[in-house]
Amino acid sequence: MKILKILVSNDDGIYAEGIFTLVKELSKIAKVFVVAPDRERSATAHAITMHKPLRAEKVEIFGPEVTAFKINGTPSDCVKLALDALLEEPPDFVISGINRGPNLGTDVIYSGTVSAAIEAAIYGIPAIAASVTAYEEISFEYPAEFIRKLCGSIKNKEFPKDSLLNVNIPNLEREKIKGIMITHLGTRKYKNCFHKRCDPRGKDYFWLAGEVIEDLLDIDSDVWAVKNGYISITPIHFDLTKYELIDTLKTWDIDY
Amino acid sequence: MKILKILVSNDDGIYAEGIFTLVKELSKIAKVFVVAPDRERSATAHAITMHKPLRAEKVEIFGPEVTAFKINGTPSDCVKLALDALLEEPPDFVISGINRGPNLGTDVIYSGTVSAAIEAAIYGIPAIAASVTAYEEISFEYPAEFIRKLCGSIKNKEFPKDSLLNVNIPNLEREKIKGIMITHLGTRKYKNCFHKRCDPRGKDYFWLAGEVIEDLLDIDSDVWAVKNGYISITPIHFDLTKYELIDTLKTWDIDY
Repeated sequence: MKILKILVSNDDGIYAEGIFTLVKELSKIAKVFVVAPDRERSATAHAITMHKPLRAEKVEIFGPEVTAFKINGTPSDCVKLALDALLEEPPDFVISGINRGPNLGTDVIYSGTVSAAIEAAIYGIPAIAASVTAYEEISFEYPAEFIRKLCGSIKNKEFPKDSLLNVNIPNLEREKIKGIMITHLGTRKYKNCFHKRCDPRGKDYFWLAGEVIEDLLDIDSDVWAVKNGYISITPIHFDLTKYELIDTLKTWDIDY
Repeated sequence: MKILKILVSNDDGIYAEGIFTLVKELSKIAKVFVVAPDRERSATAHAITMHKPLRAEKVEIFGPEVTAFKINGTPSDCVKLALDALLEEPPDFVISGINRGPNLGTDVIYSGTVSAAIEAAIYGIPAIAASVTAYEEISFEYPAEFIRKLCGSIKNKEFPKDSLLNVNIPNLEREKIKGIMITHLGTRKYKNCFHKRCDPRGKDYFWLAGEVIEDLLDIDSDVWAVKNGYISITPIHFDLTKYELIDTLKTWDIDY
């Protein structure tokens, strides 16, 4: 029987509880490699490091069965470096997470967690970004179990080309989860984002703050799903082309 | 007659030649505001700064008519801060650039230039990301003129909601440009990305390098257009949902 090979990364850093619980759980069904940032890298989006060298330091925090490296870079750097330089052969899956906090709607374009999975999809490897939709009192046990089962369910499917799965799991006990919804990205924006303050030397500075605005009426969206107790799975891709507009723009009379 | 108000940002930093030439040219038709990073921020993608305060320092490098701030943050930070805190009213356009180097195909998800324009689109403001497809011996004069004319051509159009334009201009003399193509994002990936080296203390490190692989057979793509002397305009959006896959995933038997 072929054993699955899974590369795990994240954006909360290699010492985060979410990645630890995930690796432990995935080790039951797979040979797991971990390549993750050496510290928290949230909201780094798809940043990559070009102007300084990257270091890969071997760590043994996941036990003797798991090869793990911490990297002084972003989640995207980790996946690039793993696939191009650290792993001997491509893994069957790349899983990014489990993130502390949701990655829903417009969050996705800011998310380091999702960017690591997108990077894998660019390399043509089946990828999953996994998040728990709470910031405190999180139990990662069931979410990790769900991701393990998901890998089992889909390992024999034809994973869609140039795509990946964005999974958000409500922070609920197993019995309270209502089911799985296949969703589209919903609306989750921020309003009144900056607090202006004055420093002790009389100079202004700004803190990003912001109140979340969610569209809870969009019932097929990821935002609605997790708010109502469902695990949300959204198929996403990295082709940002708005195809429907190509013909419209061709009718615009643009001079050059 | 209503005068256009245009917010300009970039990722090469406020002192870059591309933004300087653009601002000078746009000032002919608009009241221009500049909010841009205080230094180069290439490949920051859609990173945002949440864990440290942002500073906005007024600068007068564009002359007395142009209000300009430099920010210790990313291109996305600049646009957020401009729209939420620095500008009194929303601009008619947000233009990001002119970037030194192409933003084609998969580049787009790593691009700070494009992320600033995406941020504006999230706020519902018509936005353009502009790049010249060369790194050296660039003439920004004609590209800036083209972007000015583009604003003129489209100011009375209904700018499509939740979308923006990604413009790549070949680094050619005006007479050698063959025309405009409305394109989709093409394929532009990188291969063999890391050089492994050893430091003077015997420890390994890695430099991101990489050879570009472009699909030049995809003749409606941005990659093909600029390679063949056309200005490429690609409509893009920030909804990464892969809608075509939703029904397929619903047929997968996923257990939870």
